[in-house]
Amino acid sequence: MIIMNYSKTFSFLLVFFTQPLLYAQNIETTTTKDQFIREVYTQALTEGKAYEDLRFLCKEIGARITGSTEAQMAIEWGKEKMTVYGLDVKLHEIQVPHWERGTKEAFYFKTSNGTHVKLRGLALGGSIGTNGTLRGDLIEFSSLDALKSAPSEMVTGKIVFVNQSMDAKQIQTFKAYGGCYPLRGNSASIAAEKGAIGTIIRSLGLASDPHPHTGSMYYAEGINKIPAAAICTSDADKIHAFFLDTPNETMEFVMEMDCRSFPDAISYNVIGEIKGTKYSDEIITIGGHLDSWDTGEGAHDDGAGIVHCLEAFRILKEMNYKPKHTLRLVFFMNEENGNKGGKTYAEWVKENGEKHFAALESDRGGFAPRGFTCDGTPEQVAWLVSIAPFFKDYDLHIFEKGYGGVDIGPLKKSYPEIPLFGFVPDSQRYFDMHHSPNDIFENVNKRELELGAAGIASFIYLLDHKQH
Amino acid sequence: MIIMNYSKTFSFLLVFFTQPLLYAQNIETTTTKDQFIREVYTQALTEGKAYEDLRFLCKEIGARITGSTEAQMAIEWGKEKMTVYGLDVKLHEIQVPHWERGTKEAFYFKTSNGTHVKLRGLALGGSIGTNGTLRGDLIEFSSLDALKSAPSEMVTGKIVFVNQSMDAKQIQTFKAYGGCYPLRGNSASIAAEKGAIGTIIRSLGLASDPHPHTGSMYYAEGINKIPAAAICTSDADKIHAFFLDTPNETMEFVMEMDCRSFPDAISYNVIGEIKGTKYSDEIITIGGHLDSWDTGEGAHDDGAGIVHCLEAFRILKEMNYKPKHTLRLVFFMNEENGNKGGKTYAEWVKENGEKHFAALESDRGGFAPRGFTCDGTPEQVAWLVSIAPFFKDYDLHIFEKGYGGVDIGPLKKSYPEIPLFGFVPDSQRYFDMHHSPNDIFENVNKRELELGAAGIASFIYLLDHKQH
Repeated sequence: MIIMNYSKTFSFLLVFFTQPLLYAQNIETTTTKDQFIREVYTQALTEGKAYEDLRFLCKEIGARITGSTEAQMAIEWGKEKMTVYGLDVKLHEIQVPHWERGTKEAFYFKTSNGTHVKLRGLALGGSIGTNGTLRGDLIEFSSLDALKSAPSEMVTGKIVFVNQSMDAKQIQTFKAYGGCYPLRGNSASIAAEKGAIGTIIRSLGLASDPHPHTGSMYYAEGINKIPAAAICTSDADKIHAFFLDTPNETMEFVMEMDCRSFPDAISYNVIGEIKGTKYSDEIITIGGHLDSWDTGEGAHDDGAGIVHCLEAFRILKEMNYKPKHTLRLVFFMNEENGNKGGKTYAEWVKENGEKHFAALESDRGGFAPRGFTCDGTPEQVAWLVSIAPFFKDYDLHIFEKGYGGVDIGPLKKSYPEIPLFGFVPDSQRYFDMHHSPNDIFENVNKRELELGAAGIASFIYLLDHKQH
Repeated sequence: MIIMNYSKTFSFLLVFFTQPLLYAQNIETTTTKDQFIREVYTQALTEGKAYEDLRFLCKEIGARITGSTEAQMAIEWGKEKMTVYGLDVKLHEIQVPHWERGTKEAFYFKTSNGTHVKLRGLALGGSIGTNGTLRGDLIEFSSLDALKSAPSEMVTGKIVFVNQSMDAKQIQTFKAYGGCYPLRGNSASIAAEKGAIGTIIRSLGLASDPHPHTGSMYYAEGINKIPAAAICTSDADKIHAFFLDTPNETMEFVMEMDCRSFPDAISYNVIGEIKGTKYSDEIITIGGHLDSWDTGEGAHDDGAGIVHCLEAFRILKEMNYKPKHTLRLVFFMNEENGNKGGKTYAEWVKENGEKHFAALESDRGGFAPRGFTCDGTPEQVAWLVSIAPFFKDYDLHIFEKGYGGVDIGPLKKSYPEIPLFGFVPDSQRYFDMHHSPNDIFENVNKRELELGAAGIASFIYLLDHKQH
């Protein structure tokens, strides 16, 4: 026997029938905006689809590196979702790099008594393979700078290990990441120039844990290409301890990787639109990237950003919101290893003579929202600061000058006058997962994800109301 | 072969030898305060002991309900840690309730075709047992109010199920918890008054998951005591679905619990002090609670609060900070089911004629810090607001009137003039763990915990500098 709670059903119907009328009028009072935002949050937290959408992307598709079948599945999924949520959808063809990890990947070293210790590592994206087993003496450097200043004779014929830690003192973890970023991209070229035969780096993560973190690396023009991998932080500490404990010993290091690059492939950006009612020729681009690394499930990077933006559009549609500007949702392809999606999109819209008003990206994970940053003029930043009071009740507090996003970055070249906005969630847990087997759906919290979608939907609404 | 990074070692030594001199002078300029706080954060994030201390409390001791051997082990651990970290320590004897879950706990219902479905539940703290197996028809109510307004004849002889959900629309989850709190405490008494033979409630958690959440319940004076338990949210949904699918069927519900209350036991608050240099007779009490529920590991509730405060004292000691006021660290016992630690402490310090200046509690989990609230006068709240700029770089933004904490609450009766402060971390994930088997060490993030300790150490420093 059940005592039903009819009042809940009734208020749902009331909301359903009265709100489209109310909001379609776009009365621009602060109270109306406050009410609209309150309803956006209620939608996200009580009727939200973000979490289930992310589950599907992570569990039914999974890791989706550019050029893979999973990337193509994600494109089909994105097109289908946008269509179901009422957007006009098209695919925009782009040419993308195609790199595959292959099946065999192994890293180990020999202890002084001749036994082997297996290490957890991942080839860096873009690396060549080892063509069988690569063996060599390992030489450790505490930083990329230390490697740079080492004489070639110290390095020639060896495997280089750059054991540079992210700076734990930084409060925002992205700053610590920025300080170590060149290490991943450039270690192999710098080591190769000095005659090294292979290179490994300490994974770019703050925690001491067993998850290796991959990511892009590049070979300098004309350099002798050598294999490059990242070792998890706890195993990096293990190697370091070996040298501390036995300073007079050499370490034989073994690596085996079957990764390789293939000819460029055809892929797509997925683009959905809601036409503007007042400035239909002026576009606001909102998006994240659909590709991920080929390990884990790309849950925070950037499945969360994709469903943030998708859910924001769903909520606005559900509330029957009629935007003034044309709102364009873009699922970019290939952010992780080439940014061909972002670059091609920026060129294409410019060639088409489109007008752009602003762009927003979510690519910092699905954590509890902290705010938004603006890559723009002082006036554009001032506008961002001016909307902070709308978000006070929702615990967003960062409204300041800052970064937009990798995918929307090239738009700034085509349209130097437009502001780029970046969504800023809390950053503390991001680098526990980023580019690693640990970036899985289970590590995304439902409410944190939903609050991100609500924040972005509210932001789009306010941006659409920004004075011209 | 290793290229050592000597500069790091050198700067550590520099910090070690110069800082005590610098900070011992307590120069009260904004720059000095900024520098002090920066060093507090660096200590917490690079040399922190909070995470390892929490690991020990969770993994080597574990759940520690009042009156258990584990609670006594936690007291011994707390005394030892405070002593090692340089505090003057004493134990203060208190009398506490003693309730035990027992060994047998089972919940299931019979489907219409006669098969049994097992449910995940936990007896509520303070409940009587079932004295063997308790069977009865289950009757579901959508809220505590619905139960209150039901006629007795509908309830008599049945087992009552109060299936009230926490309000997901609330942004701060503690507000949603507050709305459901009476449900856990009072359902059994209200149901018993109408002749029910047992009661179960939907667990107080926002997620749909398999973790039952226990917590305190109370029997009204003179009421016929009936057993009370909480069912996990996903199983609550399962029961609800049964009634939706088969509205004309009755459900036979079975519960078996062996929990019982024992005579009051002797336990202790653990109290450590650093004497003040200027106002040694004025005390600032800082603490959390050492007891936890008897499931999970009490990691967020309130292991995190305990190590937040412990680590704050360690950092201040490490930096050779000489407080003006006497700083007192209190690990309260029995917050969860009686608050005897907090009540007895407040009476005791008043009887001893002590002067108190302020109190601070951390009991909202080990998540990324958001700020502090103040239970105090407008002037005291204004002081709290005035220190917000010191925390801007550390992403703390909540500085407003609000709650202090359960353990320090009784101090307000003894000293109505003192402000009580509550540490406010992000609340989104808290009720995924709270009072459940899911409240374990693995669900605490190291950096989030460390940032909490740093925020509290910085707050204590600023509070110690508050004008008299």
